[in-house]
Amino acid sequence: MALTLHQLNAASPAEAARLLDGLYENSPWIAQAALAQRPFRSLAQLKQQMAAVVRDAGAERQLTLLRAHPELAGKAMVGDQLTPESTGEQTRAGLTACTPEEFGRIQELNAAYNAKFGFPFVLAVRGPRGTGLSRAEIIATFERRLENPPDVERAEALRNVHRIAEVRLQDKFGTTPSEGEWVWDALERLAKHSDPGFAESGQLTVTYLTDAHRAAAAQVERDMRDAGFDEVAVDAVGNVVGIYHGTDRAARRLLTGSHYDTVRNGGKYDGRLGIYVPVACVRSLVAQGRRLPHGLEVVAFAEEEGQRYKATFLGSGALIGAFDPAWLDQRDADGTTMREAMQHAGLPGTLEAIHALRRDPSRYLGFVEVHIEQGPVLNELDLPLGIVTSINGGVRYACEAIGMASHAGTTPMDRRRDAAVAVAELALYVERRAAQDGDSVGTIGILNVPGGSTNVVPGRCQFTLDLRAPTDPQRDALVADVFAELDAICARRGVRCTRELTMRAAAAPSDAAWQSRWERAVESLGVPVHRMPSGAGHDAMKLHEVMPQAMLFVRGQNAGISHNPLESTTADDIQLAVEAYLHLLDHLADD
Amino acid sequence: MALTLHQLNAASPAEAARLLDGLYENSPWIAQAALAQRPFRSLAQLKQQMAAVVRDAGAERQLTLLRAHPELAGKAMVGDQLTPESTGEQTRAGLTACTPEEFGRIQELNAAYNAKFGFPFVLAVRGPRGTGLSRAEIIATFERRLENPPDVERAEALRNVHRIAEVRLQDKFGTTPSEGEWVWDALERLAKHSDPGFAESGQLTVTYLTDAHRAAAAQVERDMRDAGFDEVAVDAVGNVVGIYHGTDRAARRLLTGSHYDTVRNGGKYDGRLGIYVPVACVRSLVAQGRRLPHGLEVVAFAEEEGQRYKATFLGSGALIGAFDPAWLDQRDADGTTMREAMQHAGLPGTLEAIHALRRDPSRYLGFVEVHIEQGPVLNELDLPLGIVTSINGGVRYACEAIGMASHAGTTPMDRRRDAAVAVAELALYVERRAAQDGDSVGTIGILNVPGGSTNVVPGRCQFTLDLRAPTDPQRDALVADVFAELDAICARRGVRCTRELTMRAAAAPSDAAWQSRWERAVESLGVPVHRMPSGAGHDAMKLHEVMPQAMLFVRGQNAGISHNPLESTTADDIQLAVEAYLHLLDHLADD
Repeated sequence: MALTLHQLNAASPAEAARLLDGLYENSPWIAQAALAQRPFRSLAQLKQQMAAVVRDAGAERQLTLLRAHPELAGKAMVGDQLTPESTGEQTRAGLTACTPEEFGRIQELNAAYNAKFGFPFVLAVRGPRGTGLSRAEIIATFERRLENPPDVERAEALRNVHRIAEVRLQDKFGTTPSEGEWVWDALERLAKHSDPGFAESGQLTVTYLTDAHRAAAAQVERDMRDAGFDEVAVDAVGNVVGIYHGTDRAARRLLTGSHYDTVRNGGKYDGRLGIYVPVACVRSLVAQGRRLPHGLEVVAFAEEEGQRYKATFLGSGALIGAFDPAWLDQRDADGTTMREAMQHAGLPGTLEAIHALRRDPSRYLGFVEVHIEQGPVLNELDLPLGIVTSINGGVRYACEAIGMASHAGTTPMDRRRDAAVAVAELALYVERRAAQDGDSVGTIGILNVPGGSTNVVPGRCQFTLDLRAPTDPQRDALVADVFAELDAICARRGVRCTRELTMRAAAAPSDAAWQSRWERAVESLGVPVHRMPSGAGHDAMKLHEVMPQAMLFVRGQNAGISHNPLESTTADDIQLAVEAYLHLLDHLADD
Repeated sequence: MALTLHQLNAASPAEAARLLDGLYENSPWIAQAALAQRPFRSLAQLKQQMAAVVRDAGAERQLTLLRAHPELAGKAMVGDQLTPESTGEQTRAGLTACTPEEFGRIQELNAAYNAKFGFPFVLAVRGPRGTGLSRAEIIATFERRLENPPDVERAEALRNVHRIAEVRLQDKFGTTPSEGEWVWDALERLAKHSDPGFAESGQLTVTYLTDAHRAAAAQVERDMRDAGFDEVAVDAVGNVVGIYHGTDRAARRLLTGSHYDTVRNGGKYDGRLGIYVPVACVRSLVAQGRRLPHGLEVVAFAEEEGQRYKATFLGSGALIGAFDPAWLDQRDADGTTMREAMQHAGLPGTLEAIHALRRDPSRYLGFVEVHIEQGPVLNELDLPLGIVTSINGGVRYACEAIGMASHAGTTPMDRRRDAAVAVAELALYVERRAAQDGDSVGTIGILNVPGGSTNVVPGRCQFTLDLRAPTDPQRDALVADVFAELDAICARRGVRCTRELTMRAAAAPSDAAWQSRWERAVESLGVPVHRMPSGAGHDAMKLHEVMPQAMLFVRGQNAGISHNPLESTTADDIQLAVEAYLHLLDHLADD
């Protein structure tokens, strides 16, 4: 018989502890401490409480918790001494069916890992979704994590402990994150379409108007129709637009969506999650036979990443009249113009048709977008959702420091004009200065001494600067300080420096009313409200120019890795995003 | 009538000042102040005194001195208002015969230079040797110096002022640095031989046993014979060995020399100066009909730079039995083995013949080597010669820092594991730590974020370390501190680092007795004795393993640039090196 939240809230302390027995491996103290916070509004709230107990327990007890876990395919498994939960997990992960080679490799890794970190390797190895890993993937993850620094690995092990507890909790309560799983499955299907060369290697790459891109659009169109949208169509730039009418068709609509193109060898969730979360909401409304007072217009943007053509935000830009006519004549690496690519895809390829996509902002309530975080913050804080306060403004520069190349042996330290050390000094300043703001970021991503030799003092050093902040004035102050420091470093070191602006984007602060709707929605789930800036650019930046907007972030696994096949999230987290979105839809009229 | 040093020393102060009038452009105060130090033992001593007066005069008067100079091909030249000295110099440099384009370009440069630095461009434009520049070279030098930082350029301008005064002084005294000019001319002739591809472009490249290399050897052989050596021969590795016997043929010989191969696109003086200075000495002894009690054995080493084969110090190594037998089978870029190259050059190409080159150290007094400094120290100190205290020991490492690549926008500053910033922190430490020793040097010459992107936090950073010090314990302490700091940085930043030792060379401290012979020789010229370590490796390092050695450095022009066509010295400085060498030969028996 599955447990209910009501039962748990009503039970005596001892009984409640017994009900939660086995969630954390051989560590009942965690559930016991969390239960003091009853009653719980949701399982999400209970999970947060237990994670908080572990966080507050201190390093010593955390280590004890980690050490309470069995080795993967270790002695305890072989000797049938696992807890019932671990037995099920390791069996379902196929670890009892290891080949002798796999078994040997895992034993080697277990020994090396334990010697390095002092606790056994903990990995959430069972799914069905979000954590269902093959034996080969388990070994690859094991090898990767063995290279982590101790503090990083300890945090990653603890996150896996929480993920195991989450899955075990679902078992106890007999719940499944069904909307989350529906989205998960839809995104798995969508990821089957990939550009040639990537498709064969199992990598995901969908660039503008390729065959894979058009197949993905067709899939989105089908999924929208199946979900019960009233109108679905592909527009003149390839956006897939689905409309679910409100009770009053004349009322202003909520605009929402994200992009379905990807970077090369990218992740399955970047962009696409922001299409399928609202699609799942419509599917849920339709299932309940409900309509909102306002209509919902979901746009799957055809292009955001600027991979095939240098035309980022093409899809969302078209909605605000920001399509650059020169783009039609731009050629891809194979010499195909964008106009030709459009016509080949059955689109008109005319400016007239594209300009007609421009939306009248007065017809819309605003724009909201759900997106995977693409960063480590939520993952590290054990939080499934984050509310975006602003999409950071940014600038990028390509620079070169020029000093004097000289003999590394014969040039005394005080006679050098070392271009690379000048840039090194700047790199440390950028790090310090950005950290001082708390929410600014500054990066030197390209750093290279051209033609460098071991025994030559660098005469030149090429580097880039990427500086971002939640507001334009904060960004501009950061930029001014960085360049003032660069000038001072150059003057002191006898080095000069060229700089070329390659990108400038204004910040897009969230609209206060829409941000607060997201906050109330998250709060209603019993999940802590965490506000954060978005460091990456998103389609919402474009809509920001013409209407109010606010975004919701969903936690990424694997330390928030993005633009990478390791990008991942869980069906549970997606489920929470769908629930938050539904709450927002139900309270569109509130303020 | 040419002036003599005796006249100058004997003259009244007013008369002496009149005799030196015009040395420094419109600035008689310099010679006047220097004359207080009379009597002078040599013109070199007088020049040092005048340079010291300028150095001690302070920034304000130095600026006045610079501003006392006319512009190059400027209004004063056009209006016939130059001093007689400047008129001669600018005319001989061909500046009065500029094309309209050249004239226009020089006026542009004059304006830009004056605007940037606040004084006119000063360049020693007349020769005949060491400073004879074509108009194209003058313009190229002008353009290069315009890019200098103000303090660097001010020092470079002052050095040119001193060089102009030196040439004017020779005019007054009717002296020519005749041995220096002989060496200068011989090295110009030697530089005509260059490997294919470099020869056509006027660049100097002579790698082991190429046709150009063998032509260079033949030239050295001829020059030795012409100078009057008793025995001259090419040995089994291509070294050219010249012997000038002493009065007692059984007495121990002084071994000396340097290498005649070059790096690709190298300089005319690196190595070769150390062959031709002793050859000039023998030439001078022969002209005087003199023999020393001890014999002199000058070896022009065939290979030091390791360019065609990875076999550095092959020539000097053969003399101490350090020829690696595996080298004979090593292939060059065209697939030719060293044995084949030797046989093609008419050498036996057998280990037996090569092993026979090993010298019996008991037959030698020791080894001395003259070499261009290959660094900026003497040039900046206005000193023509330096006495080497030790050839630095060094180590080289190839390293890679590995952190975690992440999104530059979404990864907060305190969540990063930026491999490049870790290396930046190390670079600043290396700079600080090496400077702390005073005479250690540390360089990160290769620095690269592989596959770096503007918007990605660097996950990897490749770099090299080149660490050198005058003694092995000092070097080892430096290395230990650098790696301790690297470990600390890595631990703090969650980064790990690989390191691979690619080179380790022991320090070769100069023999006290031989170093002191060089010091006495330099002192005898009225030139300050300046002791310094050698940052670069030299053939003397090899001989150091079996016999006492000490080296003499000669100032390089152009801020000491080396391994570059800009490497340069002057006939005056070479003259002083020859005179110092002759002094050393005359005092071989002293202690």
